[in-house]
Order: sequence, then structure tokens, then C-alpha cells
Amino acid sequence: MVHYVSDAVIKRLPRYRRFLKTLRENGTDKVSSKQLGEIMDVTASQIRQDLNHFGGFGQQGYGYGVEELENRLGEILGLDKTYNMAFIGCGRLGQALINYLVANEPNYKIAALCDIRPELQGRQIAGVTVVGEDEFNEKILAGGIDIVVLTIPADQAERVSELLAKSSVKGIWNFSMTEMVIKGKSIINMHLSDSLQALTYYINHPD
Amino acid sequence: MVHYVSDAVIKRLPRYRRFLKTLRENGTDKVSSKQLGEIMDVTASQIRQDLNHFGGFGQQGYGYGVEELENRLGEILGLDKTYNMAFIGCGRLGQALINYLVANEPNYKIAALCDIRPELQGRQIAGVTVVGEDEFNEKILAGGIDIVVLTIPADQAERVSELLAKSSVKGIWNFSMTEMVIKGKSIINMHLSDSLQALTYYINHPD
Repeated sequence: MVHYVSDAVIKRLPRYRRFLKTLRENGTDKVSSKQLGEIMDVTASQIRQDLNHFGGFGQQGYGYGVEELENRLGEILGLDKTYNMAFIGCGRLGQALINYLVANEPNYKIAALCDIRPELQGRQIAGVTVVGEDEFNEKILAGGIDIVVLTIPADQAERVSELLAKSSVKGIWNFSMTEMVIKGKSIINMHLSDSLQALTYYINHPD
Repeated sequence: MVHYVSDAVIKRLPRYRRFLKTLRENGTDKVSSKQLGEIMDVTASQIRQDLNHFGGFGQQGYGYGVEELENRLGEILGLDKTYNMAFIGCGRLGQALINYLVANEPNYKIAALCDIRPELQGRQIAGVTVVGEDEFNEKILAGGIDIVVLTIPADQAERVSELLAKSSVKGIWNFSMTEMVIKGKSIINMHLSDSLQALTYYINHPD
């Protein structure tokens, strides 16, 4: 039923869901696209267009049921299921992300942790022991990991991408500052400094 | 000369610049929008449209001068200048970002660091001493800081936003998982897990 939906729409869905969660927690039952647009600083028409990709929600003039729409967006995103995550790279960024996920994102389970630095191996993070490459690679190739998070330096990314290409891993959340492409894998390449540079544009071009 | 340019275009400029840098480092002098589009997995027409917002680059049929376009994009983004950065929150995520910027982004200078945790105060990170809130607030209000990076928990964000509203800070790179809005300030709210949720959509909807 869902046909091709643009990346821009998909990237907006988690934000809609966050705002709906806050509305629900504040006791709001119904919200119109106009009201939601005002608190999110987007147009009502964009909200309606984005949601129309996934079928009908609410009735014109009656608004959306807050909890219903929040849940439906969760289902669309796949947040009615849980995912086994492996981290390659357990330095500061890796640990910060692990802590964040454990505290805030119950759908993602920390299942395996790898770091090539001997001083990190054997450490427990979020109840999982950090292991070296050999032990980790066996685990990855054995299956059962859904998403791998890469918080490794760029010069290690190519070796790791060869491993992942051979695995049954479905998604890669890549913070290694490389543009990784692996056939058959969903990959989001995170270049944090791209957003800092966009911010730099804005401070040089104030309204 | 530059009129309103959409956020989507601005967010793509750093990525163009990264690919041009790699081309230059590999010894490529000229690149057509078709060639650039192929390595970046975007259409040639999008590249041309995006760049046309900022005046003419290259000549139809002759391609772009790689180094010239890289430099021009740097100027558009404001990367021909340097910026004083302050970090509020020097835990794992803050330290990871500081290390990344010091190693990779010469335009951003670490100028002030703050953390409310006594055990972090007095520590040197990237040559700057972490201080507590009182000392830091004086420094911020004295001026000279261009961009503040927030790597604090959400429940501390409101207090900090009151301080920033009174300051001359121009930009806020907000990792506190809040949607911060301050009149007259450019703000990018980073919700890292939004991208993980988009990835989750993709692994559930493979091509």
C-alpha cells in the first residue's frame, strides 16, 4: 500500500511523533494539522501531505487523535518491534550513544560491542562486554544483529564495510565520517559537522 | 545578492564541499554536474539548481573548477572565518565532539567549556579548562563567543536557554534533545535518534 516516499518525508516522521508524544503527556486528545503545525513551525499543509502518504488519519475538520497518530507513526517507522544493535567503536561517542539509547529508546537493544583497543576490551557497558575484532566478527556473521552503529575513525571504515557486506545486518548508522554504500544494506551516513556548517551559514545570514 | 534559500539546499552544501575536497585531494581539476551527481548519488539537475541560488559557477559544458567551487562553497557557508565555540556539557558526547572539531574542523576554536559536575571542573580538554556555571555565565555574558554547543540533559536546557537569550551568542548547536527556539539566535536542534528511527523505517521497507 505504501509506495515510494521521499527521504525528506521519512526524516520528518520521528519529529511528528516526538511532538505528539509531548501533547499526549500533557493530556491533549485531539490536534488539528493547523495546531500541530504552529507548535512545530511547519505548515498545516505539509503535515497533511506527509501523512497522506500513509493513508487517512482523522477526518477533515475533526483533527487527529493524538495517541492514535503517535502509535500509527511508530508502526510506520517500525517502532512496534525491537532491534538488536551492535556497536563497532566504544569510545566517547559510542558510549554517549549507548547511554542515550538505553535511557530513551526502548526499541533498540544493545546486543554486541566491539573495540580494537585492548584497554576497552572486557569492560561492561550497558550490561554487555566489549570484545575484540575476532570474537565480534564471529558474532556478527552468526546473525541476529539488525543494526550496526559505527563510531570508528574513517580509516577503519573500509575494513569494517567488507565484514558488514558479508553479514545479515540490515541497517548501518554510520558515524565514521565516511560515505558508506553497501549493496542491500540501509545506511545512514551521519556527518555531524555538516549541520554545524549549516548553522555557520545561518549565523552569517540572519533573517 | 543571495535571497531566501531553503534549509534543504543549505544542508546539502557541506556535503558538496566534502566531495569536492576528496576530488581535489585525488588530483581532479574539473568536474561536471553529471560526474559529481554520480559519485554523490544525486541528480545533476539538483546540483545545478542548488548552486544557481548563489550565482554562476563554471560554464555549461565545461564543468566546475573543483578547487574554485570548494572554496566558493566554503565562503558561502562562512568557512573563510573562524568562530569561538563554547561547550555546555563536557561529558562523553561533548568530549567526542570537541575531539572531532579539533582534529577536523579548523574554523571552530574551542574557547570556553562548562560542566556543572564538580569532578569535571578544572580538567583541561583541548587546552581549555572546564569551569562551573558561575564562572562560565560571566564569560558568556562578556561576549566573544559565536557558537554554543549544548550537550546537556533536556531538563537543564530551559535554564541555559535563558542565559543564552541574554548573551551575544549567534548560533546554538543543540544536542540536549529539546526543540529550542530563542528570538534572534540561529539554532540547530540535533535529535540523533530521529535519524536512527528513519533508518529503522528503511530496514523495514527495503527496495
